[in-house]
Amino acid sequence: MSPREASAAGTEAAQRRLLRPEIEGLGESLIRAVAEANIGRAGVIPLWFGEPDTPTPDFIKQAAVRALEANHVFYTQNRGIPPLREAIAGYAARLHHRPMGAERITVTASGMSAIMLTAQAIVAPGDNVVAVGPIWPNCVETVHVMGGETRIVALEAADGGGWRLDLDRLFDACDERTVAVMVNSPSNPTGWVMSADDQRALLERCRQRGIYVVADEVYVRLAFDLPRAPSFLDIAEPDDRLVAINSFSKSWSMTGWRLGWLTHAAELGEPFAKLNEYNLASATTFVQHAGIAAVEQGDGFIESLVERYRRNRDLVVQRLGAMRRVRLPRPDGAFYAFFAVEGMTDSLGFARELIETAGVGLAPGRAFGEAGEGRLRLCFAAEPDTLSEALDRLEPRLD
Amino acid sequence: MSPREASAAGTEAAQRRLLRPEIEGLGESLIRAVAEANIGRAGVIPLWFGEPDTPTPDFIKQAAVRALEANHVFYTQNRGIPPLREAIAGYAARLHHRPMGAERITVTASGMSAIMLTAQAIVAPGDNVVAVGPIWPNCVETVHVMGGETRIVALEAADGGGWRLDLDRLFDACDERTVAVMVNSPSNPTGWVMSADDQRALLERCRQRGIYVVADEVYVRLAFDLPRAPSFLDIAEPDDRLVAINSFSKSWSMTGWRLGWLTHAAELGEPFAKLNEYNLASATTFVQHAGIAAVEQGDGFIESLVERYRRNRDLVVQRLGAMRRVRLPRPDGAFYAFFAVEGMTDSLGFARELIETAGVGLAPGRAFGEAGEGRLRLCFAAEPDTLSEALDRLEPRLD
Repeated sequence: MSPREASAAGTEAAQRRLLRPEIEGLGESLIRAVAEANIGRAGVIPLWFGEPDTPTPDFIKQAAVRALEANHVFYTQNRGIPPLREAIAGYAARLHHRPMGAERITVTASGMSAIMLTAQAIVAPGDNVVAVGPIWPNCVETVHVMGGETRIVALEAADGGGWRLDLDRLFDACDERTVAVMVNSPSNPTGWVMSADDQRALLERCRQRGIYVVADEVYVRLAFDLPRAPSFLDIAEPDDRLVAINSFSKSWSMTGWRLGWLTHAAELGEPFAKLNEYNLASATTFVQHAGIAAVEQGDGFIESLVERYRRNRDLVVQRLGAMRRVRLPRPDGAFYAFFAVEGMTDSLGFARELIETAGVGLAPGRAFGEAGEGRLRLCFAAEPDTLSEALDRLEPRLD
Repeated sequence: MSPREASAAGTEAAQRRLLRPEIEGLGESLIRAVAEANIGRAGVIPLWFGEPDTPTPDFIKQAAVRALEANHVFYTQNRGIPPLREAIAGYAARLHHRPMGAERITVTASGMSAIMLTAQAIVAPGDNVVAVGPIWPNCVETVHVMGGETRIVALEAADGGGWRLDLDRLFDACDERTVAVMVNSPSNPTGWVMSADDQRALLERCRQRGIYVVADEVYVRLAFDLPRAPSFLDIAEPDDRLVAINSFSKSWSMTGWRLGWLTHAAELGEPFAKLNEYNLASATTFVQHAGIAAVEQGDGFIESLVERYRRNRDLVVQRLGAMRRVRLPRPDGAFYAFFAVEGMTDSLGFARELIETAGVGLAPGRAFGEAGEGRLRLCFAAEPDTLSEALDRLEPRLD
């Protein structure tokens, strides 16, 4: 009997679902919906992903090559090779001016994987996660994969053009099934940077209720008006219910390498080891060795990166901001312009149209939740000439 | 208020669980429980993992270096770069003598990740997966992470020393909440190879009931008495509910690289793309490029590998089999000896003891389910001299 005949026979086979309902209904990344078919397409300037257009610095690539030559090609400890965990702990201690031990560090195969492992650890079906929006869709969808619900509390437009978080609204959205509040600061897509005072208040309120803070801090080094963005790791106690997500992708321009880490209470080390084992064993071995070079020798690179992105931010704010249909709050961190376009109500359609008519690839605002509709996200981690060309091409459509 | 004070105050905080109950209760890999603290330990011959002791061949390492030099360090398509998917489809078509299109191939960041994505796609809380045991613990634990239940139907000792699968018992274990039957052939840990007839019968019965076959075929090339092991991909229709798991780790000696793939009905391509996106975006970019070299130029390497493992198998069967406390069914595939030790009832304790007293690292049989207790697993993907030395060291304890 063929599969089709079995199904048509009205037998038990016909009754069974193909996929879990949560997966049938899983949202597609609308960034991917725009970009995926056009990756590498000639004539299109791709500013859709959160990714620099310059490659990983040589000293990191060379460390990977050396590790390959030294045959670092075997399985490693689930939580990462000890010297990388030590190097990350040392880096974090320097960055946050607090003691940090490797027992609180778990290496993951990307910040994305770190978010998924966190969802697997704490989100049961029927639980909910309250998140500050607009937010990168993947943060939300991991919760849905685990059968949880998400509640987005959107940033509000502040007087003077920036964004403002209403902590009371955030807390009103929490209930007895809330397992975590998720915050991404500096924010993808808005460029909003949470203040240290707000972080302190949020942590205290979550602590009182036993709710996790899941802090996606992958852009923590990319702040333009401060030495770096405030971090929950500056203020948290070692045993707080805080899971901080970090990644090598943004600070060290290593998007395609798939390397990140979790910072957590020591007692979560064992469960995260198991979850790494059952999700992918560990990150790629020679990539882990390259990660040591990144955290130990990367500070100068990051400084030059921030300087470059700051100039790009200024360029984009000046030029995009001057276009008549555009309203753009100045981003304080990360590397995105998240701008409203007057009269545009279908950001997905408009983003697709811009690929065809302007040869510029942007992410649709709708990808970041309902609060993002009417907007587009432009990643300005690009060469200035490329950015200028993209802005030239966009101008006729936005001015 | 400190975290401890908040908790002690008997407030809401004290009531909240730290982790999902499924994760609190998640089994630790007992292979890792033996090995993890002893990775790299001097004086110990490590035969605990399913991993060769020889590095990845140079032509694959060189392909990775070239890809790094060519700056293949950016994000890729979720399902993998098109040339790798095409190369894998071509490889599969050659191997299985059947047409295979890239629309049925999804690249994953390891066979492990492929298994987890499959569990995420089909296992809802309360569902069950029936698996042929003894089985690699990770296959089982992914189901538990997703809130599902596993039912292990153990192979039976066959007359003449091998293993036998009772298909009726396997089917009797299925009920209306069974979403998949999971088979790993050639089997880790037993070395059992499922016959083509049994595969045909299993597929037909699953088809009639709409149950998935999840076929972990990572050892398909490693069969010692046949050109290769029978595969469900030899007989399945393109739209069958079959998910085949594959990996670069075993056939191409790429364990630390984290690269694998899924073969599935075309209609699962979209859900698997989303799950890759929300789990880790995609496999490491330059590793994907190295994967092309592996599948396109690796046949000679695999032949020499099988030849080497066959000799090792014969050596281990001869020497271990001759030890008086040992009973060892001859493995027909994969690269493990899964042997019973007379009078040994605590395989975890005994495996730990052997590290200290004999300087040999083995995996405890208990790691592979209850049916594995009383046994140990020795990985014979090692240099013959190393194996001989390990057998010399084991002999006083086993003879």
